[in-house]
Amino acid sequence: MTSLLTRPNGKMLVSRDNKQKTTRIKVKGCTIGGEQIIVIAGPCAVESEDILKETAFKVRGSGASMLRGGAYKPRTSPYSFQGLGQEGLKILARIGEEMNMPVVTEVMDSSDISLVSEYADILQVGARNMHNFSLLRKLGRIDKPVVLKRGMAATIEEWLLAAEYILEGGNTRVILCERGIRTSERWTRNTLDLSAVALVKELSHLPVLVDPSHGTGIRSLVLPMAKAAVAAGADGIMIEVHPNPEKALSDGEQSLTPKGFSLMMRELDVFAQATGRRI
Amino acid sequence: MTSLLTRPNGKMLVSRDNKQKTTRIKVKGCTIGGEQIIVIAGPCAVESEDILKETAFKVRGSGASMLRGGAYKPRTSPYSFQGLGQEGLKILARIGEEMNMPVVTEVMDSSDISLVSEYADILQVGARNMHNFSLLRKLGRIDKPVVLKRGMAATIEEWLLAAEYILEGGNTRVILCERGIRTSERWTRNTLDLSAVALVKELSHLPVLVDPSHGTGIRSLVLPMAKAAVAAGADGIMIEVHPNPEKALSDGEQSLTPKGFSLMMRELDVFAQATGRRI
Amino acid sequence: MTSLLTRPNGKMLVSRDNKQKTTRIKVKGCTIGGEQIIVIAGPCAVESEDILKETAFKVRGSGASMLRGGAYKPRTSPYSFQGLGQEGLKILARIGEEMNMPVVTEVMDSSDISLVSEYADILQVGARNMHNFSLLRKLGRIDKPVVLKRGMAATIEEWLLAAEYILEGGNTRVILCERGIRTSERWTRNTLDLSAVALVKELSHLPVLVDPSHGTGIRSLVLPMAKAAVAAGADGIMIEVHPNPEKALSDGEQSLTPKGFSLMMRELDVFAQATGRRI
Amino acid sequence: MTSLLTRPNGKMLVSRDNKQKTTRIKVKGCTIGGEQIIVIAGPCAVESEDILKETAFKVRGSGASMLRGGAYKPRTSPYSFQGLGQEGLKILARIGEEMNMPVVTEVMDSSDISLVSEYADILQVGARNMHNFSLLRKLGRIDKPVVLKRGMAATIEEWLLAAEYILEGGNTRVILCERGIRTSERWTRNTLDLSAVALVKELSHLPVLVDPSHGTGIRSLVLPMAKAAVAAGADGIMIEVHPNPEKALSDGEQSLTPKGFSLMMRELDVFAQATGRRI
Repeated sequence: MTSLLTRPNGKMLVSRDNKQKTTRIKVKGCTIGGEQIIVIAGPCAVESEDILKETAFKVRGSGASMLRGGAYKPRTSPYSFQGLGQEGLKILARIGEEMNMPVVTEVMDSSDISLVSEYADILQVGARNMHNFSLLRKLGRIDKPVVLKRGMAATIEEWLLAAEYILEGGNTRVILCERGIRTSERWTRNTLDLSAVALVKELSHLPVLVDPSHGTGIRSLVLPMAKAAVAAGADGIMIEVHPNPEKALSDGEQSLTPKGFSLMMRELDVFAQATGRRI
Repeated sequence: MTSLLTRPNGKMLVSRDNKQKTTRIKVKGCTIGGEQIIVIAGPCAVESEDILKETAFKVRGSGASMLRGGAYKPRTSPYSFQGLGQEGLKILARIGEEMNMPVVTEVMDSSDISLVSEYADILQVGARNMHNFSLLRKLGRIDKPVVLKRGMAATIEEWLLAAEYILEGGNTRVILCERGIRTSERWTRNTLDLSAVALVKELSHLPVLVDPSHGTGIRSLVLPMAKAAVAAGADGIMIEVHPNPEKALSDGEQSLTPKGFSLMMRELDVFAQATGRRI
Repeated sequence: MTSLLTRPNGKMLVSRDNKQKTTRIKVKGCTIGGEQIIVIAGPCAVESEDILKETAFKVRGSGASMLRGGAYKPRTSPYSFQGLGQEGLKILARIGEEMNMPVVTEVMDSSDISLVSEYADILQVGARNMHNFSLLRKLGRIDKPVVLKRGMAATIEEWLLAAEYILEGGNTRVILCERGIRTSERWTRNTLDLSAVALVKELSHLPVLVDPSHGTGIRSLVLPMAKAAVAAGADGIMIEVHPNPEKALSDGEQSLTPKGFSLMMRELDVFAQATGRRI
Repeated sequence: MTSLLTRPNGKMLVSRDNKQKTTRIKVKGCTIGGEQIIVIAGPCAVESEDILKETAFKVRGSGASMLRGGAYKPRTSPYSFQGLGQEGLKILARIGEEMNMPVVTEVMDSSDISLVSEYADILQVGARNMHNFSLLRKLGRIDKPVVLKRGMAATIEEWLLAAEYILEGGNTRVILCERGIRTSERWTRNTLDLSAVALVKELSHLPVLVDPSHGTGIRSLVLPMAKAAVAAGADGIMIEVHPNPEKALSDGEQSLTPKGFSLMMRELDVFAQATGRRI
């Protein structure tokens, strides 16, 4: 497999053969890829300042390091809630500042990169855009870390090559995120592929996150899959949290309540320790 | 299923319930969605003026209606040939004009739409961008037809909803294109889903093309799958043709030679007639 | 690919390199693999003598060559109708005799082979048993033709190797049958892989059938997919027909009525002719 | 989902709604489904008495509870090593007795059930036979526990319904085993679906094992996936171990050496403790 991770003049930039140590990505006092397992939490979409503030306050209290929330939402139907756009970015930045948490948010279009960069500490490429090579190339030229989610049917090789697009442009601060692939299973929203995490950690020096919320689509599976992700070697997890999941404008059935999140954090700690790390 | 094709205020714009007759899309004297089964042929990528000219001359002589060729190529690896860009667009437009063939080419990024529109008669959204909703929205506001390829793991519902993004923006000239989905089969590059063609023709008024070149990845399967596509009700086919497939910069093993293409066209005609149509 | 179809002492028995001409399998005056495209029709399950007789009478009148019907049904749930067993075999054999049609029925267990062989002209291995190597081995030692359906997630290579198990035992009368594979598509029951038909016809001398009823699970798709199967080179098709699909004990929503079957046969003929064959 | 787990007269037998506590299955002093996480180890196939003895001695020394080894091997090609048959069963039973370890081995055909039952403590149904309903029905009538592996493309619902076939026959001692499903990923042999483990533990009272050897097909992934399986709530794991993996007659590249196994057991213990259990 590693033999595939080559480029014309040597090993690929993402290859661990090129760089033995896991890349550490520092953002406002947090380090992804270090000893600490980073927890990024927040609602699927930024819906209002109040909801985000309440969520941020509570997840920070339970130990989350970073805040997530979508301002631009890639929705299957054009008639679904599409996110608040720039207004959402402003709210996210404001709450992040107030709570002293770095913020992660998705960029869906190359023409939005500079706008999103003004507000976000980390830019996220969603699963639906993993093969949007134009977007990847342009993210290779910015000075912000990028979370690159695995595409819905992307092979591990394609995922690493998508990351290579960004590194090749000069931006070495790429964080991979496994969020489940589409299979013939019907009861879970996706099939979370934790072996991909273990394999990518072996092949590449890039840090790897896991998103058990999208990866399963079922609230009760978030905790066991978060534990399993940590056990498989993930450098962090992304969790959807909403104060009132039944009323969430998107992804309610996979969101934890702040209380469920708090419970998860307590249970997760012992698994982090079992891997010689900490939450 | 049709019940899913609804929007808040009624049936979706793509639904056949909204419009009984198949949409006819006219481009410089060609009509997609009419009695004629349209054949769009050409190399995977525009490589040089000479190669494109030779290809266009020959495929036109065999009966192709339109010319295809990529100037921007979505390649899995950043180290593969990425296309000639604007230079490729210019060559394509020039040869199209000379041969009096409308030209189809891919647009990968919303910021390239106006540039590509200057040269192309039809803009294509590739499988990797079917879920690039920003691109789809912006294509909803232009005055050119759009070929929308099905995503690698997209369901038929998601494909129709992606088309809905374009229609909802005001551009009703959308042409769907089935190009195979990713499955556990290893010998073919993708699994060409012809039942999707038959089902979409039933559910939607949009015309549907089939791309058996990408759909199979194997030269010898292009002809039988082109026949089967016509039999399943496709309104047209897209075929990769290269004068020298072994030297093609991409997709050589699935490209027909001009001679193979000519043979295909002769054999296809009888199947078109069997459906009451013509090539 | 062909290189994979090898055995220790040469090419595999199923390989076309071993035998240029398509194998012709004769059963009571019908020939599978010859000029005629064979149509095998009947209900999913044998439910009663009356229903089967009515169905057989009508499908024969419309041109079906053989009669199908399950006596042993592989059902996902143990609480679903499991077939009439030996009583079903008796009914099937009686009606087949009366109507002068060879009968095809499924054998699910190696211990039933001799019983099923008493009544059936052709034994069928269902998709769920394609990897039941014990059953395959034992079918290699009988003197009846075997229809081998492709497994739900079987690769083309595995399917040919399953056939090789039967040939290796000495039974050369194997008929392959594509019936769709399981993919991430949700609206169709399976994804009918017609490229597999074209590829298998190229690689192997065994005749290949297509089952568009199970392959799509949707009545209105049976006709277009039957046409496409013929166009792709299939040697025959298997069609579920029931006089009263709404009351069928299994697979009602994919069964044609006798009238729908009659219509299909008329429309199919012109496609058979387009391939230089006949129904 | 649980609503699907119904039968005509109430909840399905496998449903946790029918039985709150996880079923405990006792075999010669070992309990599956209890506090201890059971480790079943051994070679893919029984190749010789010496190899099995060496393997058994070492894995027992490292803490394995049960011994596995195939006498009947379901191989894709009829020309691959098919197992030693009854001779293999005898060796397995002898070594199991000598080492005082219960033995698990696969039964591929309903006509072999009584023979295999003479030698094995637990009978295993392989992934390729999960849909072999005849086999399942007959295993419902024996007095030995059954390990039921998930089929290659089986949904969780189908897997539970396959177990229901056995319970419905009267045999309540069924142990489920997740071994990966077939997806579009190419680098791993299968995609190990640990969310299925967590979901099945929620829906059913049956104990669940995980097989990270088949689930990944890559030696270096066995340890991280074993840890993750324990974290996800598995009741045990099945591990392929061979004293000389390069010379194994099957599955060498996914087998641990006895030394690798010993290392795994030490590392696994802390994760078992993190879940409040022990190895």
